[in-house]
Formats: sequence, C-alpha cells, structure tokens
Amino acid sequence: MKVTISRKAHFNAAHRLYRKDWSDEQNDAIFGKCNNANFHGHNYELIVGVTGEIDQETGYVMDIKILADLIKEEIEDQFDHKNLNLDVPEFLDLNPTAENIVVVIWNKLRKKINKNHDLEVVLYETPRNFVTYKGE
Amino acid sequence: MKVTISRKAHFNAAHRLYRKDWSDEQNDAIFGKCNNANFHGHNYELIVGVTGEIDQETGYVMDIKILADLIKEEIEDQFDHKNLNLDVPEFLDLNPTAENIVVVIWNKLRKKINKNHDLEVVLYETPRNFVTYKGE
Amino acid sequence: MKVTISRKAHFNAAHRLYRKDWSDEQNDAIFGKCNNANFHGHNYELIVGVTGEIDQETGYVMDIKILADLIKEEIEDQFDHKNLNLDVPEFLDLNPTAENIVVVIWNKLRKKINKNHDLEVVLYETPRNFVTYKGE
Amino acid sequence: MKVTISRKAHFNAAHRLYRKDWSDEQNDAIFGKCNNANFHGHNYELIVGVTGEIDQETGYVMDIKILADLIKEEIEDQFDHKNLNLDVPEFLDLNPTAENIVVVIWNKLRKKINKNHDLEVVLYETPRNFVTYKGE
Amino acid sequence: MKVTISRKAHFNAAHRLYRKDWSDEQNDAIFGKCNNANFHGHNYELIVGVTGEIDQETGYVMDIKILADLIKEEIEDQFDHKNLNLDVPEFLDLNPTAENIVVVIWNKLRKKINKNHDLEVVLYETPRNFVTYKGE
Amino acid sequence: MKVTISRKAHFNAAHRLYRKDWSDEQNDAIFGKCNNANFHGHNYELIVGVTGEIDQETGYVMDIKILADLIKEEIEDQFDHKNLNLDVPEFLDLNPTAENIVVVIWNKLRKKINKNHDLEVVLYETPRNFVTYKGE
Repeated sequence: MKVTISRKAHFNAAHRLYRKDWSDEQNDAIFGKCNNANFHGHNYELIVGVTGEIDQETGYVMDIKILADLIKEEIEDQFDHKNLNLDVPEFLDLNPTAENIVVVIWNKLRKKINKNHDLEVVLYETPRNFVTYKGE
Repeated sequence: MKVTISRKAHFNAAHRLYRKDWSDEQNDAIFGKCNNANFHGHNYELIVGVTGEIDQETGYVMDIKILADLIKEEIEDQFDHKNLNLDVPEFLDLNPTAENIVVVIWNKLRKKINKNHDLEVVLYETPRNFVTYKGE
Repeated sequence: MKVTISRKAHFNAAHRLYRKDWSDEQNDAIFGKCNNANFHGHNYELIVGVTGEIDQETGYVMDIKILADLIKEEIEDQFDHKNLNLDVPEFLDLNPTAENIVVVIWNKLRKKINKNHDLEVVLYETPRNFVTYKGE
Repeated sequence: MKVTISRKAHFNAAHRLYRKDWSDEQNDAIFGKCNNANFHGHNYELIVGVTGEIDQETGYVMDIKILADLIKEEIEDQFDHKNLNLDVPEFLDLNPTAENIVVVIWNKLRKKINKNHDLEVVLYETPRNFVTYKGE
Repeated sequence: MKVTISRKAHFNAAHRLYRKDWSDEQNDAIFGKCNNANFHGHNYELIVGVTGEIDQETGYVMDIKILADLIKEEIEDQFDHKNLNLDVPEFLDLNPTAENIVVVIWNKLRKKINKNHDLEVVLYETPRNFVTYKGE
Repeated sequence: MKVTISRKAHFNAAHRLYRKDWSDEQNDAIFGKCNNANFHGHNYELIVGVTGEIDQETGYVMDIKILADLIKEEIEDQFDHKNLNLDVPEFLDLNPTAENIVVVIWNKLRKKINKNHDLEVVLYETPRNFVTYKGE
C-alpha cells in the first residue's frame, strides 16, 4: 500500500531572469520584464510529496513533522527572504527560472529522503504559474 | 530533466446538458436540473500543464507567457462570456459536459503545443467538481 | 457582546446584462460582452453575515444550521441552475448586475432574520469580482 | 478517451494517534502532541477521483451527482462529527493516521465504484498536510 | 492614517457542544450531532486584525512578527492539539461554540495589545462557517 | 442603497525594509531578515473596494471593467516586476512596509475615483499577512 504524503511550505525571495553571457538585448528579448536589473520577487509556495509503503508499526509513510523540519532546514532557511541570484550559491551560475528552482529543490531534498521513497516537488511562482518535477 | 509547467486560466459561460435526439423525459431523467431549457452557467477554471525537457539555454520548458497567450487565444477568447451550446461550434452537436469540454480544450491546445511535449488539462466546473484529461 | 456569524453558500446561474428599453447599440456600449443575447454564466459564491448578541443559554447568536437552511430555501433553491433573467421573478424587469443581485438576496433574507440582528451579504460573481450590501 | 472526474467533500472529526499496545512513553515519543489522551480534531477535506472512458451517450464518465451521493453515504455520514478512534469501527484497532484513513476511505469506495474505473483518493488533514492513495 | 494589519494563524482541536446542566434530550435538540459525547474536531483558522496609526519612524502599525509570536503564545500554544472542553481552562464551564471561542480569544489578546489599538478577531470553524468579534 | 464593489488584482515586486538614515545595526534590530541588502520579494495581492449608490439606469455602482483598468494603469503597470525601493518614485524616501504601500496605493487610486464614492484597499504581502486602509 503505497501512499504519498505531501507538505506545503513557502518562502519569499527576489530574483531576476537573465544570462550573464548574453547581451542586454538578448536578455530582454527572451526574459522581458523578468529581466529587471533591480530584481522583482515572489511568494513561492512549495508542495513536497513523498511516496512509500505505510509503516505497519506507526501507520506513517514518514513522520510529516520530520518532513516539515527537513523542508525548513534545507529550503526555507536557505531561500527565504533572500535574493536567489546573489544570496543562494546554486543560482550564482544558473538562471533562477521556476523550472531550475524546482530541480534544485528536488536535488537538495532527494539527498535527505529515504532511498526507497519517491519524491515529487511542486513550486508555485505565482497563484497562476507553477512547475512540477519528479526526478524523471 | 522533464518538468511540467502549469498555467491557470478561466472563462465564464452558460450551458445546458441535453441531447437533441432524446425526449424531454429522457433528458430530465439523466441530466436533471442541468437540463434547464433556459441554461445555467459556471466560472470555469482551467489548469494547462505542459511537460518537457528544460531548455539549457533559457532554463524554460516553454515560456509561460507564450502558454498564457495561447490559452487566451485558443480557449478564453472562444469560450468566455459565451453560451457553449449556441455560440461555440464544437458543441453544436456535442453535449457540453465537463468531460466533453476538457477533451475539446485538450484537442484545441494539442495542435499548438510542441509535439515533443506532453499535455494535461484540468477543468473546474465548480470549486467542488473538476475533470482531468491527458490524451490517453 | 455582539458577534457576527457568517455562512458561505453558492449557486450556479446564467444571466445577461441589458435593458429591454435600450437599443442593442446602447446595451453593447454599456454592457459589452456581458450583453451576449445567448447568455453567459457564473458560479456565484455567497457569504451571509448575521450580527447579534450571543444567547447566554446556547452560546449561539443564531444556530448556523438554521441560517444555512434558510439560505438554501430562500436563495439556493430559487437561483441555482437557473437563468436569472428568465427563471427568477425578481429579475424579469431588473438588470441582474452583481449589485442588483446582492440587494435582492439581502431583501429576501432580511424578512426571515430576527429583527434585532444586522445582516450583511457578500456576493462573488467571479473569484476576482465581488459586491457587498449591508442595507444602508 | 479516459477522463478523471473529481469531487471534493469534507467531514469534521476528532482523533488521537497512538497504539494501545505501546507504553505512554513510546506513544509520546512517536506521536507527540497528536497523542493527547483527550483527542484533538480536524476539518478533513477529501478529493475523490474516478477515471474511465466517457460514455458516448451521456458524455459522462459517471454522473458526478451519483459520486457525490456515494461519498456522502459511505464516508461523510460515517465519519462526520465523529471520534474516529471511538465511533468508527475501522479504527477500533487501527491507528487513524492520515495514511490509514485514506486507505480505509479508498477501500470503502472501491467496492461501490464500477470495476472498470480507476480510483484515487486525496485527504487533507490540514491545509498544509495531505495524503494520496491510488490502490497501488 | 489608521491602518489595520492582519495575521492568519490556525490550531486543530476537538470539542463538543453541550451544557452540563441540561439533559441529553435538551442537548441533542439544540446541538444535534455537535453534541457527540466522544467529541469531534476542527482545523480552526484565525485572523487577528490590529488597527492603529502608522509609526512614522518604522512604517509599522505594529511589527507583524511580534503579533504572530503573540498569537502563537497566547492562542496556538494553548489551544492547538487540545480538547477545548477538557484541556482549556476557559471552557471548563463555557460551551465552546464558535461565538464563545472567538470572544475568549479576543479577551486573551486584548490584554496584550497596545491600548491605543483596536482589535478584531475572525475565527473559521470550517471553510464555510466563521465568526467575527470586535469587542463591541 | 449603497453597495461596495470589489476587484482583486496582483503584482510581483522586490523590496527591502530599512531606513537610509539608520545604522545597519538599527535596521537589523527593527527589520530583521526583511533588511536583506540584496532584497527579497512578494506576490502582492490587492483588493480594491469602491462604495456608492447603485446607478438606477445601469445597475452598476461603477463598471468593474473600468475599475480593473484603473488598477492596472495606476498600480499594476507601476509596481509589477519592479523593485519598490529602486524603481518606484513613491518609495525612494519611504520605507516600503505593507502599511506604507497600502497608503500609497490608496492615495493613487483616490484621485481617480468618483468623489462621491468611498474607497478601501486591502493588500496581502503574503497569504498570512495583510493590511487594510480606508483613508481614515
């Protein structure tokens, strides 16, 4: 009996979409107003899903309190109230699109989650735009 | 690294559930108050998901602005503030159940989305009732 | 100690904004796509608030189950899955704008609520557009 | 053309996480404040998804009114305003974790749903914590 | 320039509506299934609003972090994962209706908030039922 | 018959809370992680309410399409995808706390709204923190 347990979390951050190796014209053409040199920002909403067998002793796939603490340490404490481009090492040379952010989050959590469990991460950049990564 | 990017949109429309080739009794028996001859209506909420590889140049699966514009042209501009039964060609001979609407939307968008990308459409008819179609 | 108890409800309906005594050009100029002759529709969300003293015996201002039943009988059963213009007597000669609908709902409920209680009605026509009436 | 139709429902219940065959210390160590001997409670939100072919006659996978009634009879009427540990037979000897509840709900509904249809149940214990079961 | 700052919080609790000095028949007649002797429960959502002048030095009415901490200490830590009837002193002889709970919360917070500030508390017992108290 | 019509809108922006005339220590002591020199950001959600008499001709207090366009021109186009501290003239010498932002928005809209109408603005900085200003 495989069940997915999911936990919502959030962080607030500034970012700018651009490539250092492109001209301003190229960056504007592709990233438009997301390329504001002074940055803009979002309330990122995060849903982390962990899938595995129910432990017959506890009735848990995984204690969701432990999952919540893990998300706090690995993601919220690293990203919240930060400038993703300037303050977060993973994005010093990686454009912080929603797609790249969700893969970075997935990779950070994957190392800390039981190998027998599947992992899926959903990231809302705005209430109308979100991305999903399952490590596939 | 396959990521799904999702975009929410919406349209408001009137509709009536019934088959022209059925008697009133048959239509009432199956469609109940949804068969009101004067129509009723909904705020349809739409979630369109496109799955594909992240472009290593841009960090995008697909520019979500382009996806939003596509949904506007193909769906919102065609369906919003319309009577689905009377104003939308696809439903002249097709009962506009949520199931049929989501398939029509998927087919309209499928023609416009990169062939290498997978497509999934979720359609909320009310906050408590929704349907999902993946083209399978 | 005056407390407000509030209850959410909803109904789905078709409508059209126009005046019978205006030309098509006038109606189009003022009501735009809301003047589609074939109607469009909405999921109307309703919040009814009743303010009064807490009954020291029961701890209730008013039993919210009674309020919910009242909203069902007076509003949901009359408006749900209806065409407001054609099926609801109050709008036969009244343009069913959100403003007019909320006043009609308030008037219908006001007759059934304890005279010592204040009444406020909020009506969402879409998730982004709503109106409020307090009988003032 | 396989479409999933989904219906949201809810129930309010009290519960306590613990094992009768464990000591208080063990229960506290694993279940923390969820092991309050006097119980605590939740507004459980439920999403039931049924996947199948669209019936070409009706345009329905399944009449969502029938699904809503089924959820009411099988789940809401059994669980709502109950103490899961004391009032619901399935949990007399089963710890009512979100994971165990979602499997119990799935099993109860599976018996009543057309064998050709797939079934998925999502259960929100709080707005931030939810579980999903597909019978796999 | 008077601005209201508002903070959302939540707690999960079990409760039962009844009066010790009433017969079972009386309690059932008035409180129905809310009078389950084994309790039921809710995810209570709380919105606390504080109204006052903007401090010209800081641009704050009140640091919302301080308000959040205050709600945590005074309300969440006292009510979360508790049985309101059995574990919370304020309800040992007070029926924990939503109306009575919101007044108790308001009184607890009022003592801790700057006397020059107005206070309003909204309490959601379910997503469809909520109460509001302003100390009037 | 005075009705309030309300319109939701949103913008995404970066900001930093600090005073140029304070030392780093002072700014850190008061504004904590909101004083990150590299900025952070939010999805600001805005609700604008306009209260007035229903026009007996149109059934409108004010055409909500006109209100939506006004919010877009005056607020969204000025604030969206901007750095409030660096890109928005009103905040060059004003700390962009939620309180100060909501007053700036109210003042900008007040000039454009019919003098006979009352105006109220609600601004969500995060889903849990919001502010309200009525010009009082």
